[in-house]
Amino acid sequence: MFVTAQAASRFEQLLAGVAVPVHIVTERAAKALSETVTPVGLVAVCEPVSVALEDILAARPRLLVVGVAIGEPGNAGTLIRLSHAMGAAAVVLSGQSVDPYNGKCLRASAGSVFAIPVAVTPSAAQAVAAASACGLQSLAAAVDGEVTLDDVEPQLSAPTAWMFGGEAHGLSAEVAALADRRVRIPMPGGAESLNVAAAAAICLYLCARAQRKSADD
Amino acid sequence: MFVTAQAASRFEQLLAGVAVPVHIVTERAAKALSETVTPVGLVAVCEPVSVALEDILAARPRLLVVGVAIGEPGNAGTLIRLSHAMGAAAVVLSGQSVDPYNGKCLRASAGSVFAIPVAVTPSAAQAVAAASACGLQSLAAAVDGEVTLDDVEPQLSAPTAWMFGGEAHGLSAEVAALADRRVRIPMPGGAESLNVAAAAAICLYLCARAQRKSADD
Repeated sequence: MFVTAQAASRFEQLLAGVAVPVHIVTERAAKALSETVTPVGLVAVCEPVSVALEDILAARPRLLVVGVAIGEPGNAGTLIRLSHAMGAAAVVLSGQSVDPYNGKCLRASAGSVFAIPVAVTPSAAQAVAAASACGLQSLAAAVDGEVTLDDVEPQLSAPTAWMFGGEAHGLSAEVAALADRRVRIPMPGGAESLNVAAAAAICLYLCARAQRKSADD
Repeated sequence: MFVTAQAASRFEQLLAGVAVPVHIVTERAAKALSETVTPVGLVAVCEPVSVALEDILAARPRLLVVGVAIGEPGNAGTLIRLSHAMGAAAVVLSGQSVDPYNGKCLRASAGSVFAIPVAVTPSAAQAVAAASACGLQSLAAAVDGEVTLDDVEPQLSAPTAWMFGGEAHGLSAEVAALADRRVRIPMPGGAESLNVAAAAAICLYLCARAQRKSADD
């Protein structure tokens, strides 16, 4: 770990429990290392946690999140944080998605990237096919989906893989067609779409709730 | 409007319908004007749309969004976009919130800042008191809320003002205490919190849905 003098005193208790070597660095070095203008002053060198899609599916997930071509690091990190909060088993980043260990993605994930398995796989089609073979229904969030979130709510307690597309264009029609259903979120206001984090928050919350209630019964 | 030559040809149809003077500018000027590295090439000078809280409340809103100390422009813009999508009557930015006409906020709002009334008011307490005097219940999204979103769902069809705090700390205990209830979002996973956009997406979606269903009955 690399720690500024100020951070060393501020996080004294936290650092007392650290089992790896801690080196004091300058503010300037902390800025460069953390790629931020106002660094907290704590930087750790970590091994990327590499998880294979097969291992995720072998654990029979009930809620899986598949990001497709999520290019914006903030969106990818927020999706990981959200998936973790909602109790998803794992996140799969497919297509031309950002590296989950990108600095901005790491920060937006607020640590969740180390708490929930994140698999990286080039093909969204293969990910959805593999999930399907494991008995998960696949739902794609799409502004022009043929069913609404209200329509599918009774089915959300079943094991589900949710697909979300990147910010600018959402899922391509070709990728959305891979899912069992394309689901649109009712928007009573006039906005054309939601950003991916907002859309995913709504879909994952309702799915987690349906699965929780079904487990309670 | 200031338009690059490339944008002028790309958005020819759109510009044909514009009733204000259009000036061609260089890519470099467009970059500076739009404060982005890869500008679309269309910049318009607009008058800020100033809306007073009293005018918003006089229209008897059923769903009002009160942001408190939303300092991060991306979060403020996303909150505005989301409020618009969910059919909220207006957004009130209170406390030390960012200027809704900040460039980053404008972009994150994806145009919604021009489609939904946004009032700026220094005091969250006054905003909540005024909403309450107009018959709206006030609900504060808070990680340590005394009720869950499940608990309050039956009450969400009533006219409601939702309060959301800024990213780093959420609502202060003092501000959260202003609301009729503090509502926590069930998080079956281990994450400590959601970012403000995700939390607001979930709360506003459920509230809009309850109000829609109640109107259908």
